[in-house]
Amino acid sequence: MVEHSMRAEILVEALPYIRQWTGTTMVIKYGGAAMVSDEHKRSVAQDLVLLQHVGIKPLVVHGGGPRISSLMKQMGKEPVFVDGQRVTDVETMEIVQMVLVGLIGQDLVTHIYQAGGRAVTVSGKDGKTLVACKKCGGAVDLGHVGEIIEVHTELIKTLSEAGYLVVVSTIGTGEDGEAYNINADTAAGEIAGALSAEKLIVLSDVPGLLRDPADEGSLVATLKMAEAQMMLESGQIEGGMRPKVEACVRAVSLGVPRAHLLDGRLHHSIIMELFTDRGVGTMIER
Amino acid sequence: MVEHSMRAEILVEALPYIRQWTGTTMVIKYGGAAMVSDEHKRSVAQDLVLLQHVGIKPLVVHGGGPRISSLMKQMGKEPVFVDGQRVTDVETMEIVQMVLVGLIGQDLVTHIYQAGGRAVTVSGKDGKTLVACKKCGGAVDLGHVGEIIEVHTELIKTLSEAGYLVVVSTIGTGEDGEAYNINADTAAGEIAGALSAEKLIVLSDVPGLLRDPADEGSLVATLKMAEAQMMLESGQIEGGMRPKVEACVRAVSLGVPRAHLLDGRLHHSIIMELFTDRGVGTMIER
Amino acid sequence: MVEHSMRAEILVEALPYIRQWTGTTMVIKYGGAAMVSDEHKRSVAQDLVLLQHVGIKPLVVHGGGPRISSLMKQMGKEPVFVDGQRVTDVETMEIVQMVLVGLIGQDLVTHIYQAGGRAVTVSGKDGKTLVACKKCGGAVDLGHVGEIIEVHTELIKTLSEAGYLVVVSTIGTGEDGEAYNINADTAAGEIAGALSAEKLIVLSDVPGLLRDPADEGSLVATLKMAEAQMMLESGQIEGGMRPKVEACVRAVSLGVPRAHLLDGRLHHSIIMELFTDRGVGTMIER
Amino acid sequence: MVEHSMRAEILVEALPYIRQWTGTTMVIKYGGAAMVSDEHKRSVAQDLVLLQHVGIKPLVVHGGGPRISSLMKQMGKEPVFVDGQRVTDVETMEIVQMVLVGLIGQDLVTHIYQAGGRAVTVSGKDGKTLVACKKCGGAVDLGHVGEIIEVHTELIKTLSEAGYLVVVSTIGTGEDGEAYNINADTAAGEIAGALSAEKLIVLSDVPGLLRDPADEGSLVATLKMAEAQMMLESGQIEGGMRPKVEACVRAVSLGVPRAHLLDGRLHHSIIMELFTDRGVGTMIER
Amino acid sequence: MVEHSMRAEILVEALPYIRQWTGTTMVIKYGGAAMVSDEHKRSVAQDLVLLQHVGIKPLVVHGGGPRISSLMKQMGKEPVFVDGQRVTDVETMEIVQMVLVGLIGQDLVTHIYQAGGRAVTVSGKDGKTLVACKKCGGAVDLGHVGEIIEVHTELIKTLSEAGYLVVVSTIGTGEDGEAYNINADTAAGEIAGALSAEKLIVLSDVPGLLRDPADEGSLVATLKMAEAQMMLESGQIEGGMRPKVEACVRAVSLGVPRAHLLDGRLHHSIIMELFTDRGVGTMIER
Amino acid sequence: MVEHSMRAEILVEALPYIRQWTGTTMVIKYGGAAMVSDEHKRSVAQDLVLLQHVGIKPLVVHGGGPRISSLMKQMGKEPVFVDGQRVTDVETMEIVQMVLVGLIGQDLVTHIYQAGGRAVTVSGKDGKTLVACKKCGGAVDLGHVGEIIEVHTELIKTLSEAGYLVVVSTIGTGEDGEAYNINADTAAGEIAGALSAEKLIVLSDVPGLLRDPADEGSLVATLKMAEAQMMLESGQIEGGMRPKVEACVRAVSLGVPRAHLLDGRLHHSIIMELFTDRGVGTMIER
Repeated sequence: MVEHSMRAEILVEALPYIRQWTGTTMVIKYGGAAMVSDEHKRSVAQDLVLLQHVGIKPLVVHGGGPRISSLMKQMGKEPVFVDGQRVTDVETMEIVQMVLVGLIGQDLVTHIYQAGGRAVTVSGKDGKTLVACKKCGGAVDLGHVGEIIEVHTELIKTLSEAGYLVVVSTIGTGEDGEAYNINADTAAGEIAGALSAEKLIVLSDVPGLLRDPADEGSLVATLKMAEAQMMLESGQIEGGMRPKVEACVRAVSLGVPRAHLLDGRLHHSIIMELFTDRGVGTMIER
Repeated sequence: MVEHSMRAEILVEALPYIRQWTGTTMVIKYGGAAMVSDEHKRSVAQDLVLLQHVGIKPLVVHGGGPRISSLMKQMGKEPVFVDGQRVTDVETMEIVQMVLVGLIGQDLVTHIYQAGGRAVTVSGKDGKTLVACKKCGGAVDLGHVGEIIEVHTELIKTLSEAGYLVVVSTIGTGEDGEAYNINADTAAGEIAGALSAEKLIVLSDVPGLLRDPADEGSLVATLKMAEAQMMLESGQIEGGMRPKVEACVRAVSLGVPRAHLLDGRLHHSIIMELFTDRGVGTMIER
Repeated sequence: MVEHSMRAEILVEALPYIRQWTGTTMVIKYGGAAMVSDEHKRSVAQDLVLLQHVGIKPLVVHGGGPRISSLMKQMGKEPVFVDGQRVTDVETMEIVQMVLVGLIGQDLVTHIYQAGGRAVTVSGKDGKTLVACKKCGGAVDLGHVGEIIEVHTELIKTLSEAGYLVVVSTIGTGEDGEAYNINADTAAGEIAGALSAEKLIVLSDVPGLLRDPADEGSLVATLKMAEAQMMLESGQIEGGMRPKVEACVRAVSLGVPRAHLLDGRLHHSIIMELFTDRGVGTMIER
Repeated sequence: MVEHSMRAEILVEALPYIRQWTGTTMVIKYGGAAMVSDEHKRSVAQDLVLLQHVGIKPLVVHGGGPRISSLMKQMGKEPVFVDGQRVTDVETMEIVQMVLVGLIGQDLVTHIYQAGGRAVTVSGKDGKTLVACKKCGGAVDLGHVGEIIEVHTELIKTLSEAGYLVVVSTIGTGEDGEAYNINADTAAGEIAGALSAEKLIVLSDVPGLLRDPADEGSLVATLKMAEAQMMLESGQIEGGMRPKVEACVRAVSLGVPRAHLLDGRLHHSIIMELFTDRGVGTMIER
Repeated sequence: MVEHSMRAEILVEALPYIRQWTGTTMVIKYGGAAMVSDEHKRSVAQDLVLLQHVGIKPLVVHGGGPRISSLMKQMGKEPVFVDGQRVTDVETMEIVQMVLVGLIGQDLVTHIYQAGGRAVTVSGKDGKTLVACKKCGGAVDLGHVGEIIEVHTELIKTLSEAGYLVVVSTIGTGEDGEAYNINADTAAGEIAGALSAEKLIVLSDVPGLLRDPADEGSLVATLKMAEAQMMLESGQIEGGMRPKVEACVRAVSLGVPRAHLLDGRLHHSIIMELFTDRGVGTMIER
Repeated sequence: MVEHSMRAEILVEALPYIRQWTGTTMVIKYGGAAMVSDEHKRSVAQDLVLLQHVGIKPLVVHGGGPRISSLMKQMGKEPVFVDGQRVTDVETMEIVQMVLVGLIGQDLVTHIYQAGGRAVTVSGKDGKTLVACKKCGGAVDLGHVGEIIEVHTELIKTLSEAGYLVVVSTIGTGEDGEAYNINADTAAGEIAGALSAEKLIVLSDVPGLLRDPADEGSLVATLKMAEAQMMLESGQIEGGMRPKVEACVRAVSLGVPRAHLLDGRLHHSIIMELFTDRGVGTMIER
């Protein structure tokens, strides 16, 4: 147990960090393990509400791959992936939308209210926030997989200024009204850039970028954007970590000063990163 | 073909009606046939956008029963109704939420954008807009079927004032964060009252309230709230029409001057009601 | 008689036009036959109020030559014109001011109120809106005939933003406080430019610009500004049409995208031009 | 010649008065001799602009009887008065409007601009500011003579807040759009009341209320509203002074703390009354 | 040393308290030991800035008795007290003002800037914030000792809303411009009431209210206002604690929900009281 | 005695000057004789309040050398000056701060309230308004004598816009929190520049700049900035006049159109300069 005077001390020691971040926008990409257990959801929701109370404007972008696959199976459809991307026919697109917008976003809103905040979900269709087009290239037609061509931040800003914590479900909308399945990591990078965020924080199930994925001790603490780009080009970064690092690089290239890969399995990793002198995970900067 | 001068004449003849409604809020309950064909959706979306352009603040509340049942069946669950209400276990609640919030609300937003408007979906969880509790009474436990105990209009007003057309999906949220399945007609009545709307307009698949449901010629053009209440109590109004008339009565009792039951199968029935001298359907007033 | 459903259809068909013009400023030069009969005045007032209700900011600039001449005669003065301009001695200037500001502007305000709008007259002296100097050149001294050297839009904007429809009487004021008689067509062109209007609409007693003034079939539907300028320079355009075309050219040269010469004898010609797919009259653009 | 140091002293001595009136509204009824010579007009305009510069919101209500009569004669009409009120047929109404709105109001605006202020005229039709009905009673039909039934202050307030000095021409407008000739003294009293003015100041051609109209030495310096009412009822106050005293009584009864009858023939009588310790003229208070 | 994860945990555990106090005003009476050492000043300044960063509006009221006495002695004047109140002749009044306004307030502003905040001093003369009159009663004339008769909060609110932390030096001003020496505890109570503060926090050199002043173990943890009043009346509370308890009772009687007597010798006692579950010191409530 | 009509005349004659200065900021450096007698203080306070009432934003910067020296002596310290600058050790710095912030600023606030205005003192520490560093160069270490490196105008503007007359005490604050003694003339020049003031007015005990300091008849009425600079460089200007002329030159070089040296011994010299046609003292312009 920690003494009350020490508790006060610790709060005061967070002051320089609070001062540093107050008034800024932080985009948090939420996914993986941190999204599975109720305990983790509660912990992330508390972090978000604390951020809001010390004057930070947090915005959450969430994914939901495993849940989509499980609903597909329940409906008798076999998920198919090509180069890590889900082949998305019309029916799959509806499932994606139902899971992300109808379940996961709503669930997060509820957790934030229970942690004492006020939240709203926004899909990329609402307010035409994420305008997308069909993703081209590749040997296989991925169907409704899209890429963002424009982020309209007006709706997000209206809600933020009214004091709501915004939760973004990454459905894109074509100029023709077509729905698109957008990778949530990628969307988080684009949104962080469009909002001139102070940080992009990507939560995943690993401690950060590892030189050797098998060795958690090989964590890269900080990385220049250029190095990260080289590591991506050389194929050193693979699998699920690839779009996460790409999102960080994209955000930094759009002017976000720093992007972080944090371990979502640790409770309160966002708070630890922002309000203590110990960096956790990997930081990518210009 | 109508002459251009006559077209201008007709626009000018709508002027007194435009003057009458400008600045008011209109709640439109959207459901039934009007929600099935793309042509009908387009027609309703155009009506809504036209309303917005002449200075009216329209708000849409939508249902989605048939679609929910069809997804349930696809997932191997048999829909069960008791007294017209869907028995809603935990899994069914998720399906309700996925269909209403994830599919139908999003679909309507897209149609409104294509008609030239700007729209946003709001579930009852977003901004804690619809606070509900478990519906009591009845011999059978209906599970997550809830009733509204409070409407928080703040989020809706923030969005309306920022120029967005709000589409409400009627998921309720308990104080404990539990999700509730709310009848959309009922919700529309409560929301119209909470917003001090000028009108509640309920679109259905019949011409209005019929004295003899089998005879479309037996349409009741206008009805006092007290008469409607008596007809409800005496059991004269049955089936799907019952919650619609109840919603109208509820809205009028909360101060909404007039509530209308319109035929959603007619194109532009909203415009016809509001901007011509011919009332269509049934009007319920104090 | 037109069916109600068709009426609704026609209203909805106006939607794309409403969307296009909402939020813009339209300057309407009002004069000639449209200003004589009560029926025409009513029709124009309705058009103006309809414009205001669909989000357009209309501003009216009116003339009043015939009425001025008739009052002059009543007071025993013979109107004298040189090159289409009224010789304006001190006494005539007072008559001009009394007729334009005291009668015609006030009359139009009353008609707009009766059509359901809210209006205010503004002379060029009010708020020093039209600063003018004595018109130079010419063999004959025209007296108080002036030309605009500056348009101060502040008063007009204050009234527009407060929701009033502004009616401008084209009296100019010299820096020395002297009153000047300003051609209303010319003033309309200058004001449209100063307000960065979307359109200048000039109502007259002919269908538009006619290649052969004697043949209403020789209507020019569209004209480039440069062509119009050439036609003016070559003297092809004569009489009362000359200052109207000059005003259109001036407005377009100041950045107004399009200027229109409409037949004020047709009822609701403004609405026809703006809200149907049939252009009426002549359009001049860059 | 006054020394510069004494000039500074005098400015400073005005300070308590400036403090007292700053932020208040003063309604000035302007008429009679003060409206004839250019020198007097200049003096009144300077007073008004000085008021505005020290934080007072002055509003001018003007009459114009002599000028109306002279124009009538010029047009071959003989002015007819019954009990001091002008019989106003349709043609006379137009003359009244032309003179008040078209000439006198405009003239005053110009003088205010030359004294360094910014002014706007408002007739009772503009913004439907003075709603009137036909004056009833009396043996003779006075035609378009009206009395005020409502003062809409919205337009006046919009202009005042935007920094314009408002000049009101007392034309009334019926609900039917009919124009009415309103006594300017009466209108000033009503407007002062509607605006919750701090003072009503009525300029006339006498030093104030005289016990013996033939003896300027019989000036009444201050008078309670009740006394003034008794004097009106007993017929002690006659002729042109009657409506002026009635206006003062009306304003005071509507809550205006004090009303003043000042000698408009003295230069700067408004300034003298407001900023020196010598009351000039007659003050009527509750 | 505390682990980083525990630090994050502690920050998150403060969340419910932060939520509870955000948006409220807290008046802190600062004096005694907490005002002597630089380390204590730094600690209090950090607490104040932290409060501001989590959305609380803190306002500081400071005393300065010992410093005043020491300057008096330096200037050859012997401090004289009657019933705990300083006899304040004209010269002493100037010394009081110089020390409070010129030294201590300024010193606190500097410490707040160094802790990362933005501060401004306000004496009771600035903005006529503390209107006072000579304190009456008592056998001895205390000279310029005054009591507050009105608190004008306008200046404080202007500065608070502009984001400044306000430091109040308790000099009062008479309607005649006379300066008055006001007890800082008393002033803090009045100001807390006038601002409808959420809490009044009085820092002193004891742990709180002690039943037996000689025994720190006899601390009263909570006390009803009525009990405190009785204890004051019965003379149980004496010496320097008396005005502190009176200030708490006064604030609570003016509607402040809770007043606290904290031990200013403990570092971060304000933070401990507000953000942990351990109450420190004595709480007085209604 | 001056007649009332002449008083009105004189007020009106000030109108063009009032118009000219309304809305501008005037920085007044207040010191010397004008700060000694109560009568002079009253006179200056009246001038300031009059300025405020005619729409000018006055800001006062005050000195207080003699009072500082007298307190030093009272405390047994001998004032030491090197090149006209006070050697300021730590203890002296506290005395400077106590006198300027605690006495003189407060005194001026009281006088302004008694003249009917609303005032607030601001030291350079409040809102970090005057950021300074230790003055370098010179053979002797002057201790806490500083020079301004930045003027933060935010606090001053907040207070000005809220209608307070700001009184600045020229204590500077180092980035490290250290206090600095700043020459008030110099500070006035810097502040006038930072606020883009319309004028800097420096009150002193002489009629203005004299070619021959012994001959008041040798007054320089106007001077170009370049000439003034030359006179400074050539050493023609000496003693207390030197920093005053330097401040004027500095202000003009920062864009202030005109700076004035006025005789503070004359009552209402500020009013005389601003509102009559007689310039008093010396004017320095670009």
